[in-house]
Amino acid sequence: MRALATDPAARGLLDDAAVLEVGGERLVLTHDMIVEGVHYLPDDPPADVAWKLVAVNLSDLAAKGARPLGVLLGFTLGDEEWDQAFAQGLGAALAAFGLPLLGGDTVTAPARVLGLTAIGRAAGPAPARSGAQPGHLLWVSGTIGDSGAGLRILKGELGESAALVERYRNPRPRLEAGERLAPLVSAMMDVSDGLLIDSARMAAASGCAARIELESLPLSQAYLALLGEARLEAATAGDDYELLFATTEAAAPAILALAEEIGLPFSRIGRFEAGAGLALTDRGEAVPVPATLGFEHG
Amino acid sequence: MRALATDPAARGLLDDAAVLEVGGERLVLTHDMIVEGVHYLPDDPPADVAWKLVAVNLSDLAAKGARPLGVLLGFTLGDEEWDQAFAQGLGAALAAFGLPLLGGDTVTAPARVLGLTAIGRAAGPAPARSGAQPGHLLWVSGTIGDSGAGLRILKGELGESAALVERYRNPRPRLEAGERLAPLVSAMMDVSDGLLIDSARMAAASGCAARIELESLPLSQAYLALLGEARLEAATAGDDYELLFATTEAAAPAILALAEEIGLPFSRIGRFEAGAGLALTDRGEAVPVPATLGFEHG
Repeated sequence: MRALATDPAARGLLDDAAVLEVGGERLVLTHDMIVEGVHYLPDDPPADVAWKLVAVNLSDLAAKGARPLGVLLGFTLGDEEWDQAFAQGLGAALAAFGLPLLGGDTVTAPARVLGLTAIGRAAGPAPARSGAQPGHLLWVSGTIGDSGAGLRILKGELGESAALVERYRNPRPRLEAGERLAPLVSAMMDVSDGLLIDSARMAAASGCAARIELESLPLSQAYLALLGEARLEAATAGDDYELLFATTEAAAPAILALAEEIGLPFSRIGRFEAGAGLALTDRGEAVPVPATLGFEHG
Repeated sequence: MRALATDPAARGLLDDAAVLEVGGERLVLTHDMIVEGVHYLPDDPPADVAWKLVAVNLSDLAAKGARPLGVLLGFTLGDEEWDQAFAQGLGAALAAFGLPLLGGDTVTAPARVLGLTAIGRAAGPAPARSGAQPGHLLWVSGTIGDSGAGLRILKGELGESAALVERYRNPRPRLEAGERLAPLVSAMMDVSDGLLIDSARMAAASGCAARIELESLPLSQAYLALLGEARLEAATAGDDYELLFATTEAAAPAILALAEEIGLPFSRIGRFEAGAGLALTDRGEAVPVPATLGFEHG
């Protein structure tokens, strides 16, 4: 569909969200879908599926520095018990973010395909993913890999950790961070498919190369306890819904001060360079780039 | 989901679209889905399915007097040939309406469930469906029943008529009419599920009764040629995507003058009264209200 998205507001469909100027307002719009067996497990609690549907869309707004105004739901009816639990979970998720359900559609369909449209307003600039330049620093918020580890726990591949399962089922969109970071960054997006693939996308959109220092990747204590220093796994697992952003070297003190102020760590994980593609190092040593950088959409 | 939609912008999910005031702008948002076998036939040409997906959403904007600004697509990948034909049709439909594809999502899913979000801007009031009052006139644009007859033709139940099939496959949202009517009406919605059921919904939302004079229903020559005076069938078939609206008696001359000006007939088909429910007459004689008023959603 990319060939159709010729309007500047669509940003070539390469960005997380559309940015539409209406009157004096900068509106940010996103529509993400989730499908059973692809984006969530069939036995995930319906309320968690509802949370995730809301969170993944709000994460796109966060990456554009936008404050959400409301959502529209596209819902396929399934069995009544599941649907009711989903509706309750959706209500709880919307209440948690103080958001109205503005509208949507409910249809009968042979499979559960859930869509959500979120609309938000950016008070300042809405950073694209294409603004990084050679010399800019690459940063990520929070910790990486927790959600992927949570999924492996649910699949029975790892030990137990309620914290990691929580990260998988109830991702927290970085709304406040996104809004505060927007004026300070040269590029921003959220990490949904994997840190490496999303970094590569930011580099490609920006027309430069990215070098990532694996030893700088922020891993949680829970992740380290279960998986140790499995940094490549953390960097390709996806579903993190953290913010990935680029800044000038000069902006670094302001970024670190903001991290302190809002209580969310921002880690410098690499740098943009002239050229193209992705390079990895670990304590100065080159590391081969893995064949799979993350989750690839169709 | 209705219990969740407590924000005034959602209009209790009872309206065609959400109306959101942002800054000085009145934004109108709608999200409609279509499912194979429910909203279109499996062998309908993909380009027509794309047209319909766009048209049904724009029809909701038309009913709120809004001019569309763009759309977001929720697309499930199926077979490549179908998907390409759909994309081409979508491009053609968007070009016909001068609209950008702003964004959206593409997922792999076990069934084809297509969603579209349309956003528009209303320059004036965005009429709700709840504003009709006893004594107000009930009107409908264009002709009724053509699309339903087109569907029956495609199912092999009726003779041939390219015009009626065209009405089924390529409905024309009444955008100009909606924008021009908005300041003149007390209530407005589009006819998607059937004239009777949608009239009953307008009456219920407005807290009054509606009396429809079946002899006044506008039927096309093509419809009359194939189905004669089958007025109840026309009034319950749905998929008309015409505008249904209420006005004061005093507004009637302005409505008729507008019809003349834009070249789209508006027919007076009944009146709102004190009370509740729907009553039907044919040339002054009461007609029993059929058990099925139109297409009922889950």
